[in-house]
Amino acid sequence: MTETTHSEATKHMWKMIQGIRFAMMTTEDGGVLRARPMVAAQDEFDGNLWFFTHASSHKVDEVQGDQRVGVTYADASKQDYVSLSGHARLVRDKAAITAHWQESLRTWFPKGIEDPDIALLKVEVTA
Amino acid sequence: MTETTHSEATKHMWKMIQGIRFAMMTTEDGGVLRARPMVAAQDEFDGNLWFFTHASSHKVDEVQGDQRVGVTYADASKQDYVSLSGHARLVRDKAAITAHWQESLRTWFPKGIEDPDIALLKVEVTA
Repeated sequence: MTETTHSEATKHMWKMIQGIRFAMMTTEDGGVLRARPMVAAQDEFDGNLWFFTHASSHKVDEVQGDQRVGVTYADASKQDYVSLSGHARLVRDKAAITAHWQESLRTWFPKGIEDPDIALLKVEVTA
Repeated sequence: MTETTHSEATKHMWKMIQGIRFAMMTTEDGGVLRARPMVAAQDEFDGNLWFFTHASSHKVDEVQGDQRVGVTYADASKQDYVSLSGHARLVRDKAAITAHWQESLRTWFPKGIEDPDIALLKVEVTA
């Protein structure tokens, strides 16, 4: 895949997923494939997906053990169904948290970026 | 879990997913978690999920190798997000195919139940 087609593919992917607020992230937990909704936290896409999370949540334990995740996006009104695969890692860097923060996330993080448990899951998309 | 609560849980689950026409089914393919949309093919729920498929499709190869699947349902309008885990197996039994057939499936199977490649994936939900 050349740079150009990679960039075009990324652009096309972003066009499909940018309006979808919640993705489902699947991890493997003791041999069981399990998913949970994740609120998207980015306004552009360069090949990485970003989601806010509580650092102490069980899914974080899971991706620390096995970084492989599947991420799906569904928009029934457009019949858009997207599957992305990648590796997730926890990011607690304050600059990254500030850069991705949106006020609408306060529903889940009432204390905002000052929440001591706030973190990001960064998914490097591989397929 | 008693019979009663199991039955109640099943009923509650069905209430959440029955209006969602497409589920995303995640399988593990060579270490990569991959999903694709599946059209639901049932009008009741007893703990098993049923989806029509082409018997020759790649995902069928995958579940023959590793039966574990994750199935997710997303209804953004209601903010309903459901994750189910289970084991999938291919069903080619004509009676089961006939019982689950809906005319709206003709989009994917123009020949209907006479299609020689038509089959069902039955997912026994375990979690």
